[in-house]
Order: sequence, then C-alpha cells, then structure tokens
Amino acid sequence: MELISSNRSFGGWHKRYKHQASSTSCEMTFAVYLPPQTAQGGKVPVVYWLSGLTCNDENFATKAGAQRVAAELGIALVMPDTSPRGSEVADAGRYDLGQGAGFYVNATEAPWQRHYQMYDYIVSELPALIEGHFPVTNRKSISGHSMGGHGALMIALKNPQAYRSASAFAPIVNPAQVPWGETAFSEYLGDDRSAWLVYDSCHLMQHATQMLPLLIDQGDQDSFIPQQLQPSALEKIALAKQWPFTLNIQPGYDHSYYFIASFIEAHLRFHADHLGA
Amino acid sequence: MELISSNRSFGGWHKRYKHQASSTSCEMTFAVYLPPQTAQGGKVPVVYWLSGLTCNDENFATKAGAQRVAAELGIALVMPDTSPRGSEVADAGRYDLGQGAGFYVNATEAPWQRHYQMYDYIVSELPALIEGHFPVTNRKSISGHSMGGHGALMIALKNPQAYRSASAFAPIVNPAQVPWGETAFSEYLGDDRSAWLVYDSCHLMQHATQMLPLLIDQGDQDSFIPQQLQPSALEKIALAKQWPFTLNIQPGYDHSYYFIASFIEAHLRFHADHLGA
Repeated sequence: MELISSNRSFGGWHKRYKHQASSTSCEMTFAVYLPPQTAQGGKVPVVYWLSGLTCNDENFATKAGAQRVAAELGIALVMPDTSPRGSEVADAGRYDLGQGAGFYVNATEAPWQRHYQMYDYIVSELPALIEGHFPVTNRKSISGHSMGGHGALMIALKNPQAYRSASAFAPIVNPAQVPWGETAFSEYLGDDRSAWLVYDSCHLMQHATQMLPLLIDQGDQDSFIPQQLQPSALEKIALAKQWPFTLNIQPGYDHSYYFIASFIEAHLRFHADHLGA
Repeated sequence: MELISSNRSFGGWHKRYKHQASSTSCEMTFAVYLPPQTAQGGKVPVVYWLSGLTCNDENFATKAGAQRVAAELGIALVMPDTSPRGSEVADAGRYDLGQGAGFYVNATEAPWQRHYQMYDYIVSELPALIEGHFPVTNRKSISGHSMGGHGALMIALKNPQAYRSASAFAPIVNPAQVPWGETAFSEYLGDDRSAWLVYDSCHLMQHATQMLPLLIDQGDQDSFIPQQLQPSALEKIALAKQWPFTLNIQPGYDHSYYFIASFIEAHLRFHADHLGA
C-alpha cells in the first residue's frame, strides 16, 4: 500500500493510496478520510462510498463536503475507484462500460472477467485491507450515487449481516431492466438474464429474508429517473415487505453533486445512528 | 446575460451565467448562489469570492462547501472567473500569467491592456450587474484564495467604504515583492515598480486611513508560505496600526481546497456578522 497524497481536512486527514489488488489483478486507488477521533487512539466505524459512472475516488472526496460531517460524527469514509484501471485493463471507449463503469459486479465474460471483479474487491478485499491498516472497527455501512447507489444497495442486500445500514442518492435500483444495466450486465455477465438477477436490488429485496435499514434520496428534476433509475420500483417492494425504508423525493434537485452535497449530512447521520457512532 | 446552468443546492440555487463585459471587452463567466431566503422575496447581502491561479468560477463552487453555510446565514455568493478568456484574449502558455491568472489588476501594458481589466470588472462592473439583476442588497464583503486572497484584501483596502469586511485563505499579501507578483505585475503594469504598489496589500495597509475588519487563515504546511505568501508581513503592519485583523495559522493544513473547505464556515460567519446577515 503506497500513500499518494495526504491533506489535513476538518481536523482529520484525507489520504489517497494505491495498492496491488488480488481480486482485480491490477493496481487500485482508493481514498480514506480519518476523522480527528482517530488521532486520539480511537477506532471508528466506516462508511464506504461507491461513486457513479465516470467517477474515481476524487469526485466524492472533493465535492460532497462529507468530511465535515464525518469529523463531527467520528466516522471514517472509504472511497474506492469505480473500476479496475490501467493500460492492460479492458475498456470500451464509452462512459457506461469498462474503465470508470465497473458496476460493482464480478464479470464472468471475456474480455472483462480477468480484472472486473469489483464485487469481491468492495465486499472482501478492500474492507480487509482497511480493517488491517487503519484505526477502524469492523462496523460498517455503505452508500453511493447512481451506479454507486446500485452498488451500495445491492451489496448491502446481499450481505445484510456485514453492514449496519445502506443508503443511496439517485440509485439504479433495477439494473436488470434499464438501459445502463442492460449494457453493462450483458457485457460483464453474458446474455442469460437470469445471471443478472443476483446483482439487481429489486430482485434481491423481493427475495430477502434479512432486512437492514435503507435510505434513498432522489431529486425530482433528475433527467435519468424514468429510463434509468425508477426508485418507485424498489419502494413498492419495500412497502409490501414492510421494510425499514425511506425514499425522499427532493423537489428541484438534479443528478449532480450539488444534490449529493445538500443531503450527505442526513445520510451520514442516518448511518451514524445505526453504527452507534 | 445568459444562463449557462442552474442547480438546486441547499434549498437555494447555484446558477452560472455568461455576459459580454465592457471592462474586459470579452465574454465573462460567473456563478451566483442564491440562498433560500431570496425565494421568499427577500434581499440578501453578498460575499464575493476571488479564486486563485488556474481556477475559474467552478473550483470554489464545487469544492468549498460554501453554499451550505450561505443558505443558513442568508448570504448570496458571487464567484467570478479569474481572468478574461477566449481565443482573442492574450495568453502566455503558463499557469501564473495570462488566462486564469488576471491578478485582479487593470493592465496598462501590451498585449494585456485591452482585456486584462479585472480590477474594474470586480470592483465596478460585476457588482452593478449583480445588484441590478438579483435579489441582493448593496451590502457586500469579499474573500478569496491565494491570488484571489491578494485580490480580496487589495480591493477591500482600496475601497473600504464599499465592503463591510474582507478575508483570505493563504493570500499573496505582498505581490510587489514575491515571484508570482513580480512575474505578473512586470507584464501587466510594466517595469516601474512604483506602479505596482497600488495593488500591493502591504503597501495599501501601511498607507490606509480607513480600516475594515480583516480575517486571514493560513495553513502551516503550505509550501508557498516562504517564497510567495508571507502573511506575517501584513500582520506586522496590522499590529503596528492596531488594525481589526486576525491571522489564524492552522497546523497541518496545506494550500488546497481541503484547507478552504475546513474553514469557509468561519469566514462566512465572520462576514455575516459584519454584513448584519
């Protein structure tokens, strides 16, 4: 693990690292925010943040204003990249597939399957690295935006024992049914649509036996709602199952980081409540 | 004036505009944040933000987290570009001169003097435009970072009747004496160093007859301190003149937006106190 940069932020430290990852067979970059409480020898819980299409670890780090709230609440933030990267890693020359668009799945199809193992990286390899090297507890929650909102909800629904809570901004809740998901899943997972369902939050919630608290915020001026996002599809299942689930439709807000910045404090307070931070 | 984009942010609106400016004889871009109080018919005071070398109106808008505080306090933010721009505008192919590096002066020398009239743009043309088109009062304060910290302090010291307060993050306080200033001022203002002094905050404070409250934050791990910034030069004059002046040296902080984001709330609260917001 090699330190790339370190910036003091709200009394704590924002640090970027790179490391050779075994799951994705390439060098991966991630950022971690360590709140001031860790400087006094304390261990803190972690919120993992999964970013959306085209992003890397820096978008959320620089634009969301999350460090301020994490510093107050005593929470570490971990911000991975959205895909494997590098000249040896397959790519597609488009924004919604390949590098910058890993969709948090384990690819089974060529040419993707060698490096695009983002599910294993986020669920197993990265938490083990974080818990082995930083002053954190094993209590964790997960959040994300758009493609990363899909990642956060899907990973939490598949691993409800591992996360105390999950939240999302403008998530893709039904990737097996919408164009972004169809493009990515047909490439990463092949043409058999039944193989896609294990990464589809609507399907996972429908068949879940263990619940965890979920929070979603969605701007009503987000142009991706009708074709790509459709949060009401997940809400319908949640209502039928009496899931601990909140969907806030925010009037006037769009898909941008101005939207995320406006509500990240509420999301981190939600996670802090469930993390006991 | 043409609207470029509009994003809902913390219950208000972040808007970008372009307009043909007479002072700089080119199209200029700026952003304005209108807090929620303006939606209810209220007029609010304004804090102008001047950015540093290489920046445009978007750096502060996306990275500082200032809208949250402005929304709470009922302050509008105005974020101009750092220079004239365009293919017809002189440039130097370097980061510290020409486009992105206007230094907030009125250039007198070729090839700069036609467009590089940023002092007039910031002091006169832009406030007239803002006060004519947006729900704001004529109460205003000014802040900035690095080259923009120089701009904010210099403009306030030259116009103490026009601003209620001024603040800066890691400002160039003595541009007539440091490399960044020497490069820019010799090009924009010519070789006669006496012409530089009207834009030098140390000189202006030394000869000021009217005071206004000033606040400066400076990270002690900022690598530009010894050669370019030297805030202690201004502090020395302020102390001798019993100026209402605070210089906070922040341990561990650098020159980045992580530093600005950490302390922007304190700066906006300082301005709100003096603006009566």
